[in-house]
Amino acid sequence: MFTEIKSTRIYEQVIDQIKEMVVTGKLRKGDKLPSERELTSKLGVSRSSIREAIRVLEVIGIVSCKQGDGNFIRTDFENILFEPLSIMFLLNKSSEREIFELRRVIEVETAGLAAKNITIKQLQEIRLILDDMEKTEDEDLKIKLDKKFHYKIAKASNNFLIVTVLNTISELIDSFIKDARAKILETRKEKNIIETHHEEIYDGLVNRDSKKCSEAMRKHMKMISECFIEE
Amino acid sequence: MFTEIKSTRIYEQVIDQIKEMVVTGKLRKGDKLPSERELTSKLGVSRSSIREAIRVLEVIGIVSCKQGDGNFIRTDFENILFEPLSIMFLLNKSSEREIFELRRVIEVETAGLAAKNITIKQLQEIRLILDDMEKTEDEDLKIKLDKKFHYKIAKASNNFLIVTVLNTISELIDSFIKDARAKILETRKEKNIIETHHEEIYDGLVNRDSKKCSEAMRKHMKMISECFIEE
Repeated sequence: MFTEIKSTRIYEQVIDQIKEMVVTGKLRKGDKLPSERELTSKLGVSRSSIREAIRVLEVIGIVSCKQGDGNFIRTDFENILFEPLSIMFLLNKSSEREIFELRRVIEVETAGLAAKNITIKQLQEIRLILDDMEKTEDEDLKIKLDKKFHYKIAKASNNFLIVTVLNTISELIDSFIKDARAKILETRKEKNIIETHHEEIYDGLVNRDSKKCSEAMRKHMKMISECFIEE
Repeated sequence: MFTEIKSTRIYEQVIDQIKEMVVTGKLRKGDKLPSERELTSKLGVSRSSIREAIRVLEVIGIVSCKQGDGNFIRTDFENILFEPLSIMFLLNKSSEREIFELRRVIEVETAGLAAKNITIKQLQEIRLILDDMEKTEDEDLKIKLDKKFHYKIAKASNNFLIVTVLNTISELIDSFIKDARAKILETRKEKNIIETHHEEIYDGLVNRDSKKCSEAMRKHMKMISECFIEE
């Protein structure tokens, strides 16, 4: 199961061995890692190297450390890209434009994929979200539902990777552009435009028309990005 | 500059303080971090917590550790997403389909952005790549040039974030689907199809026609994905 390690970059090799266990199926999602003490003696490295490796896996979002209970392979990875992306943004001083553009680039084609793959149940869920949005006057709730609408479409693409990347971008937009929502609300004067766009996207989904759905999403994103970028 | 830390999740707080220094501009790309000894005394935490934090930043790709010279904030972040994404793929047993689909989703719209933003110099570089591809019979070189073609288009989008994400996906495709190239070569019997597609994309770029360029890329990606997925 383990091989003894003799080298300088020890923590990296510990990570590699843990990865190896994942590749070979010896560790699966939700599994408990051997204790730090056990890993120390099995791998023949210092306890601090083991701890470094585990910390890295924790921050990356692979391992969760439950106090008093040990270290586990996570079962969800939704936030796995957040930490590295957020630090990268800070260091690169990435602009709002770049973050939003990536979202736009992904969402347009994802809408097309969703039109192909969406299930009846997912269509019904999206219909309900749109109905709820129309019923409420509460702006905070509307925004929550709006996010849910986009999230459900990503889910309908049936590609976990796309869902993860889009989620990360949304969170980044929320945390880096703190006034994004206010901006959009300020600029979005003709509220019907949003509703019309959403219905067009929904039509594309219902008719399983990838092209129409992508085009509707493109129009929607263009409108949003005009609120964002040009103000 | 620093605040003393008193808590349980110490290494996380060390990371937060380093991030804070980035946010406030006290640390920039290429800067040397204070020595481990200095950080230990300034932050009032153990040396091993400092080392854990630095290891995490290293693996994430934020810090590079030069033996005997200290720790530096990296100047490039091209590989920043590789480690977390690759482990995530392993754990999720993400399929080739998912990885390739994400690439496809991003490249189609990115081609449209590139048509808008490409510079004369970038157009010339891409022309040269296509000419070189036509001249050579060496399949390995052709593949190298093909990758360069796609990379240059991503660059022309003028969005660093898109370049980074696409690069990561390409590397993942290379390392997880080791026989991808062979597969494509095997299936791509009509070699002219590839060349025709590339020229269509190039036409879209030259004419700064986003729609045409996206459509040409969509067609190209569809062809590639058919080699991939259906074999």
